[in-house]
Amino acid sequence: MEKKGLIIVHTGDGKGKTTAALGMAMRAWGNHLRVLILQFIKGSWKYGELEAIKALASVHNHIEIRQGGLGFSQRDRGAEEEHRRAAAELLQMAVDELRNNAWDMVILDEFNYAYSFGFIAPKDLDSLLSARSENTHLVFTGRNASHELIDHADLVTEMRLIKHPFQKGIKAQRGVEF
Amino acid sequence: MEKKGLIIVHTGDGKGKTTAALGMAMRAWGNHLRVLILQFIKGSWKYGELEAIKALASVHNHIEIRQGGLGFSQRDRGAEEEHRRAAAELLQMAVDELRNNAWDMVILDEFNYAYSFGFIAPKDLDSLLSARSENTHLVFTGRNASHELIDHADLVTEMRLIKHPFQKGIKAQRGVEF
Repeated sequence: MEKKGLIIVHTGDGKGKTTAALGMAMRAWGNHLRVLILQFIKGSWKYGELEAIKALASVHNHIEIRQGGLGFSQRDRGAEEEHRRAAAELLQMAVDELRNNAWDMVILDEFNYAYSFGFIAPKDLDSLLSARSENTHLVFTGRNASHELIDHADLVTEMRLIKHPFQKGIKAQRGVEF
Repeated sequence: MEKKGLIIVHTGDGKGKTTAALGMAMRAWGNHLRVLILQFIKGSWKYGELEAIKALASVHNHIEIRQGGLGFSQRDRGAEEEHRRAAAELLQMAVDELRNNAWDMVILDEFNYAYSFGFIAPKDLDSLLSARSENTHLVFTGRNASHELIDHADLVTEMRLIKHPFQKGIKAQRGVEF
């Protein structure tokens, strides 16, 4: 079988973008791939996910999650420069890890968010893609995936919101939404 | 915080329906919820997923997966009655487990497939929904979710295919698609 790293994008306004990336991490881990998860929004992965990843890592230590970037809540504080710096640092870490060919799958969670707000430039996306060896899978999540990214991608899925519990006045539920 | 079990549906022709359910199972497990996964298509969850679930269960034994139904490949063999019987058995198991309030989340993977082919009747869906205690989350996956199910659902996401590697002639990759 021909081996080829895929560029995968989960976008759209619906739920399931990060959740499906989590499922991909799990499946890849189960297939003995080495999985690195980089969070471009601080705090977007919470207790449940982190516990589960810790559990997998305790069985076979080839999955890791690293936080970078700033939180959503910090966006409106005029901290544009801080955001840019935090995103650039995390992106540089991704480039270095890819150059070292240290992982079989790298998940760039909420990358699209950071990109669409201009915290990451098109030339940085190019550096990232060219640092990748051809067997490494990259998974990008977040609303508003850029045309630049979609052009490069092999697999793009849009998660569309059809019905949401908030519309019925139901609060977010532990274990489901966080 | 108000606790309420949600009815969640992943549908559409794109990737990520089962993968996002796997991610939900992981997050719920990490939040100490008891998670049962029922597969309405035999063989739809493969090595990677099964290994990961086994690993989680080895850390805290409150996640379980059970296979039922027949495989996709058996559909064309005129085995309509066998499909109906296999789906009915699995559905009865789901009803019993829900009545016993033995789980906090039950994932009915590829339920929509079995339903849309008529292997499960609307009255069986009603039995299932009324067997659930109000704190239990139900997750249904598969293309062509029925209007009956969507009417009852709290959260519905459509996974839409935007771009697929098969369109570029790239084969399915271990660790990603299976």
